[in-house]
Amino acid sequence: MEEAKTKNIKADVLETFITELFKKAKMPEKDAIFHAKALVKSNLWGIDSHGVIRVPAYFNRMMNGGINTQPNIKAVRGEANVEVIDGNGAAGFIVAKEAMERAIEKARTGGIAAVGAINSNHFGAGGIYARMAAEEGMVGIAMTNVKPLIVGPGATKPVVGNNPIAFGIPTYGDFPFVLDMSLSKVAGGKLTLAIKKKEKIPMDWATDKDGNPTDDPQKAFDGYLMPMGDHKGLGLAYVVDILSGVISGGVFSHQMKSMYANPEEPSLTGHFMIALDISKIITKEEMKKRMEEYYKTLKATPMLKENMEMFLPGELEYIKEKERLQNGIPVPETTIEELKELAEKYHVDEPLTVL
Amino acid sequence: MEEAKTKNIKADVLETFITELFKKAKMPEKDAIFHAKALVKSNLWGIDSHGVIRVPAYFNRMMNGGINTQPNIKAVRGEANVEVIDGNGAAGFIVAKEAMERAIEKARTGGIAAVGAINSNHFGAGGIYARMAAEEGMVGIAMTNVKPLIVGPGATKPVVGNNPIAFGIPTYGDFPFVLDMSLSKVAGGKLTLAIKKKEKIPMDWATDKDGNPTDDPQKAFDGYLMPMGDHKGLGLAYVVDILSGVISGGVFSHQMKSMYANPEEPSLTGHFMIALDISKIITKEEMKKRMEEYYKTLKATPMLKENMEMFLPGELEYIKEKERLQNGIPVPETTIEELKELAEKYHVDEPLTVL
Repeated sequence: MEEAKTKNIKADVLETFITELFKKAKMPEKDAIFHAKALVKSNLWGIDSHGVIRVPAYFNRMMNGGINTQPNIKAVRGEANVEVIDGNGAAGFIVAKEAMERAIEKARTGGIAAVGAINSNHFGAGGIYARMAAEEGMVGIAMTNVKPLIVGPGATKPVVGNNPIAFGIPTYGDFPFVLDMSLSKVAGGKLTLAIKKKEKIPMDWATDKDGNPTDDPQKAFDGYLMPMGDHKGLGLAYVVDILSGVISGGVFSHQMKSMYANPEEPSLTGHFMIALDISKIITKEEMKKRMEEYYKTLKATPMLKENMEMFLPGELEYIKEKERLQNGIPVPETTIEELKELAEKYHVDEPLTVL
Repeated sequence: MEEAKTKNIKADVLETFITELFKKAKMPEKDAIFHAKALVKSNLWGIDSHGVIRVPAYFNRMMNGGINTQPNIKAVRGEANVEVIDGNGAAGFIVAKEAMERAIEKARTGGIAAVGAINSNHFGAGGIYARMAAEEGMVGIAMTNVKPLIVGPGATKPVVGNNPIAFGIPTYGDFPFVLDMSLSKVAGGKLTLAIKKKEKIPMDWATDKDGNPTDDPQKAFDGYLMPMGDHKGLGLAYVVDILSGVISGGVFSHQMKSMYANPEEPSLTGHFMIALDISKIITKEEMKKRMEEYYKTLKATPMLKENMEMFLPGELEYIKEKERLQNGIPVPETTIEELKELAEKYHVDEPLTVL
């Protein structure tokens, strides 16, 4: 993927186009705007794997019933500052947004709140929702389970998803602290790249399809990913699965459907959001000062080479966003073709102007 | 350490001995009992690095003022279901217990609660506190910052501690789900072992004292540890530091004191505890059934070899505890000598009977 030919498109052009496309799938305008913006934002932050390249797949799911564009999302469990909402098969982006909004609202009075979501779909980059909390002066934790795709040591079949988890923390500076990570050692895209470059991969990235660790990227591609941090990342993936799927009354382990293989069925994905209103324990001014100190201390770290520096999580995304707002978002030509075909087929009037 | 000569001692013998020893440092009986039990439990679970071998160091700190055995622990910040307590330089075990107890209590009505702690000390194994919540039918998250000891890529000085984080989840079965992990790639003890065995270590475990990745365990021992999961574990270590030290008004980054080098000063360690009362969203019966299914699915994973199996986090600790309750806890002879010297010097009457 990293080597695919791309053309740059302005963020606002992409956003308008995707909004209009999703409206063709009967998604209400408000939802379409949020969904499109979240995808384009992911690209702006440099998370291209979770950006516009997924639009054709999401749209396909909307048109085939896998994503319900007219959902009735409602609370089904919970009391006090803990709640579970039923996503009614809606787009994961819409369900996750609703869950985090509810968590933020409850945290305003309760100080901290947790909202789980069931019967949802792929929610994109977790950082989207963690940031929502950070922008409200709260710590936000956003996680989701996904279909099992990583193996434990010795296993010959995946045991759990690479269940992403994201943390957002307000800094009141140029950018919030955002850590957004999946729990596999590397993303699948790294295998594709090694195949193209005919390079071997480290033995702890992946296994072949029989569960044997391998340094052959093609065998790895046909096999399974390994967890980041070995048993630690594996354990954390279980935690995410249990919070997102077990305690919320949703599905877990092998019960989810694939977002690609089953376009006509909701994935049944579960999410879990926590919001913590730090204004209950620290003033905005004090927090700003402390996070500045944290940042400066990190930046003052002596480095091996002069041109190296430490980055606070969220900083590289901030730098990338500034650059891409200027120069546009590189979109693979294959994706542009797909989008143009969809535009023609479904009469999207907005142009997809390539820079 | 793994190769040190050991002798087995019964858990209850150790517990009584340590309780009496800590009372000699003017620790109230109730606190001494909890502290001793927590240390012995850590050994029973197989976490020997955080068990009785630390008793001489803790006792030294108690006698020299680094640990305040007669603290006035009280809430200093917070409202609703979020609070920060000041540990007043007490033993980390006592402060962390108080923090988790308060979180559990608040979660009973609020559904979820968070309690931070500042001015504390080393709290031992995070699993102790995460389990407290699990035993009350709650999800527990326990974390602490520690003095920086891991480097980021390219850094020639540690940037953050290997800040442990533990998760406890009730299963209502034989044992709770407990994931207790530090955020370095490996523990320092693995380097010591490689030195003894004259083995090289993987390049991603540690750096030399100048920040260069190394496969020489001695150079690594003189250098710094690398984060588990590379930038992911590093980012998570920042999150733990920020929750434990920044938002709570405590200390963070390089502001902590060493537990060994500064026996006369509190480490100023911060902790952060979250308790989530799952009974607000799921019944005990439903949770039990779902966690049984989770466990069975994991156990049914096809494995490379017949004698291999997947374990739920907490399961190995459960197995180890049963074995060690029977056969005693292997304690290094050097530790036994130290304890006996302390017993003589401070007139501890309880015998330290070696099996």
